[in-house]
Amino acid sequence: MQMVKNALGRMVPSEVNGRAVKPFEGAFADMVSGKRKAAPPIPRCFPGRIDKVVNSLDGVLDRLPLRDGMCISFHHHLRNGDYLVNMVIEKLARRGFKDIVLAPTALFPVHDKLIPYIESGVISHVEGSMNGDVGRACSYGKMKKTATLRSHGGRVRAVQDGDLHIDVAFIGASAADCYGNANGVLGKSACGPLSYSNVDSLYADYSVVITDNLVPFPCIPWSIQGGNVNYVVTVDSIGDPAQIVSGTTKLTKSPTQLLIAEYAARFVEEIGYVREGLSFQAGAGGISLAFNVYLAEMMKKKGVTASFAHGGGNTVLVKMLEEGSLKYICEGQCFDLDAVRSLRENNNHVESTLSISYNYHAKGCIAHMLDIGVLGATEIDLNFNVNVNTHSDGLLLHGTGGFPDVAAGSDVTIITAPSFRKRIPIIRENVTTVTCPGELIDVIVTERGICINPKRQDLIEKTKNSGLPIKPIDQLMDEVYKITGVPEKVELDDRIVAVMEWRDGSILDVIRKVKT
Amino acid sequence: MQMVKNALGRMVPSEVNGRAVKPFEGAFADMVSGKRKAAPPIPRCFPGRIDKVVNSLDGVLDRLPLRDGMCISFHHHLRNGDYLVNMVIEKLARRGFKDIVLAPTALFPVHDKLIPYIESGVISHVEGSMNGDVGRACSYGKMKKTATLRSHGGRVRAVQDGDLHIDVAFIGASAADCYGNANGVLGKSACGPLSYSNVDSLYADYSVVITDNLVPFPCIPWSIQGGNVNYVVTVDSIGDPAQIVSGTTKLTKSPTQLLIAEYAARFVEEIGYVREGLSFQAGAGGISLAFNVYLAEMMKKKGVTASFAHGGGNTVLVKMLEEGSLKYICEGQCFDLDAVRSLRENNNHVESTLSISYNYHAKGCIAHMLDIGVLGATEIDLNFNVNVNTHSDGLLLHGTGGFPDVAAGSDVTIITAPSFRKRIPIIRENVTTVTCPGELIDVIVTERGICINPKRQDLIEKTKNSGLPIKPIDQLMDEVYKITGVPEKVELDDRIVAVMEWRDGSILDVIRKVKT
Repeated sequence: MQMVKNALGRMVPSEVNGRAVKPFEGAFADMVSGKRKAAPPIPRCFPGRIDKVVNSLDGVLDRLPLRDGMCISFHHHLRNGDYLVNMVIEKLARRGFKDIVLAPTALFPVHDKLIPYIESGVISHVEGSMNGDVGRACSYGKMKKTATLRSHGGRVRAVQDGDLHIDVAFIGASAADCYGNANGVLGKSACGPLSYSNVDSLYADYSVVITDNLVPFPCIPWSIQGGNVNYVVTVDSIGDPAQIVSGTTKLTKSPTQLLIAEYAARFVEEIGYVREGLSFQAGAGGISLAFNVYLAEMMKKKGVTASFAHGGGNTVLVKMLEEGSLKYICEGQCFDLDAVRSLRENNNHVESTLSISYNYHAKGCIAHMLDIGVLGATEIDLNFNVNVNTHSDGLLLHGTGGFPDVAAGSDVTIITAPSFRKRIPIIRENVTTVTCPGELIDVIVTERGICINPKRQDLIEKTKNSGLPIKPIDQLMDEVYKITGVPEKVELDDRIVAVMEWRDGSILDVIRKVKT
Repeated sequence: MQMVKNALGRMVPSEVNGRAVKPFEGAFADMVSGKRKAAPPIPRCFPGRIDKVVNSLDGVLDRLPLRDGMCISFHHHLRNGDYLVNMVIEKLARRGFKDIVLAPTALFPVHDKLIPYIESGVISHVEGSMNGDVGRACSYGKMKKTATLRSHGGRVRAVQDGDLHIDVAFIGASAADCYGNANGVLGKSACGPLSYSNVDSLYADYSVVITDNLVPFPCIPWSIQGGNVNYVVTVDSIGDPAQIVSGTTKLTKSPTQLLIAEYAARFVEEIGYVREGLSFQAGAGGISLAFNVYLAEMMKKKGVTASFAHGGGNTVLVKMLEEGSLKYICEGQCFDLDAVRSLRENNNHVESTLSISYNYHAKGCIAHMLDIGVLGATEIDLNFNVNVNTHSDGLLLHGTGGFPDVAAGSDVTIITAPSFRKRIPIIRENVTTVTCPGELIDVIVTERGICINPKRQDLIEKTKNSGLPIKPIDQLMDEVYKITGVPEKVELDDRIVAVMEWRDGSILDVIRKVKT
């Protein structure tokens, strides 16, 4: 495999699993001229009344043209409560299939059960986000081929552009009709949007909706549209509703996290963004939620209304929407049940497809309309490059989410993170893996200081008399190193176990095997 | 041009304007195996904040790569109140462009102003429905090339499959934001759905939203999504609101029309379809509206609720929805302002894209979920073939609408028409043009008798003791001929001015030049 140096100085391969790829050349360097989207097969409406219902997963597997090496996909709206990925893989394993390319939008700890199937070769590799032990298994070199990590926008692009061809998309739905119209807002397993699967339903050769709640035609709203669906499978349960909602969305009580959130909110105020029409996106982690709370208070005090919040819905945003300090929530996933309820009931809470939200290969995406993006990190380096995927020991433990898309789109991108975790410095000379190039990161907020990217002189100017603990990033690093000590360089194996794709499909970085 | 005989015995060309085409082989004969959809160019999101607004139509025309022979498209949701088609063509004519292929979803009498541009060669020909004098001009051979007529579903298919390539889609919207999200339910020019343009926005090389109501981002609902839009043009007015709504949607007072509607409704009752969960589609003509009224009364009396009405929204359906005798309206266009209001306010009144509604080259479409389809006709022949496009003098004066899609999809397809108009028989030995093959037509209801297609023995059986005036179609024709006389055969020119495409792209019939 030929290796080339990319614009960040990282050595990256020129092909991945036999597919030629380009090195990263800059956040907006790709001009894509002359290329065309993937052209899915033309299907055909059959005569007579349409009923696509099959009463068992085995029944539908009997009907599908399955083969070794096929690529199958799933959404992760059911999060850690998902039953479907394990269920489908187990059945495919029993049927003797191997070398399956698994292309979920994300995997959670509930999917740790897949590891034996990775070890036995039923699953060749993953193209998608891995949270938990499947990522660890990848790090230890247990996948036969190279995994590919993509952001939300990068995944939509890859499917749309034909880089990721899906043979069969499996789409869990908390409500569906016999024709395949489906949503995630009705029924006992309601999880919010199904929008992560929208592109799969459009481009996969076969799409299968799996539901535990068959409703009379038409199933309204139709987040997934029956015209893109081949079969509807009924099962007893698609997931454990108690686990569907992320446990991480509770408001933090950590003084450090609260301080970081407060600094970030004050920074936004100091630069003049707490204003009428503000648009913002913050994740669902403890700091992000607390940031939302502080921001909401500031906006209320100032009597201004935000235009829209983007990303994942949560109870804090829903409260803002219902109190009138926020006009719209546009989201692709729900982090708690309040958000699910709001999406179901409030017409100003809107489901957005990943293409609408994040796709770089579109004529614009919502992320590019954001004023403020607040994002987390596992590592940040002196060039403001950010890592959210691996830990400093090299282990791949987290998905990418919409990070690169939000960072690329937001007017001001703010990273919030503690300066160290368990005596491991977050601010350091080099990140283990680049998830997002520093050119897109404007501000880093830690409990120990705030660093502004020198290219944002405007922000430096606006905050110079703010009283906020603003300092150069190398100074912050030195302070942290004094506490943690200088981190040791981790020795990694040569083998590349995963590549990190940039939004445009170019290779940003590689993830190497961790020595056991 | 080589001519071949198709499955209806009609002689049709094997190519149209240089594009190879297949003869019609049967309503569901096309198996499409191995073909792929069109692959639109991959666009690219540009860095920084997105603002696509251009303050004049000339401004956007300056930015577009226009050329002679290009294909431009429009939707017809503004109906006879549309300003945009004339406005754009006039500007293109001034810029000296010629041989433009005009691909509107439909043209109305307001577009009679295009005729000089057809005569001067600015417009080469039309691919789309023509209502009024543009159709007449086509009939008289004024278009340089052969026009193509398609149903709603046929048009979506043609664009999706690459048979109709659109260079620039112009999309009028009564509300839009700077990014191109747009709808037709808000603003002074509200016309209802924009769903006819959905496929254009997805497949055209360039999409331009034209609005007289720029709203703050995000424009919700987003019937057209900004990620598929290149430019947003602001103009003073996109149409005359008074003319946007069709004048033909008033309830009829004609005793003949009322009798036909009553017969049709009684027929539906006799065959046992006035039942819980009924789904139906009837157009917006006088008979269809009256049919809806009779049906609503019957359902109320029986205490049953319809599951959904499909097609064009109107005040009768809205009343049913609001009274609870109808669960959902799924529609692609609004025929009156009550429907526009309902679509805006009622979550059970849903905008459906043409692909969801009618596309034969999809994994199903809503039309195929219909119990009852009620449709009009200009001519019907002894084989139950129906013509809705031309008059018996050969003049092309009407668009196809969703006729073939509804006829193909409905469990029971009922044609309602007077037995003759102005002493011209509607029931006759041969139709001038075949819009829909008789294999899909189940029942013909006239004021003078009801004819059931012999292939529907089940319907004949169910209604034999109904007291309805059921008779063989040749008997009805003889009765009509006794009043009107036997119609004379019209002498037409050899030149083919238009072809009638079936839903699958095959050629159903040709329209020949009318001698002047």
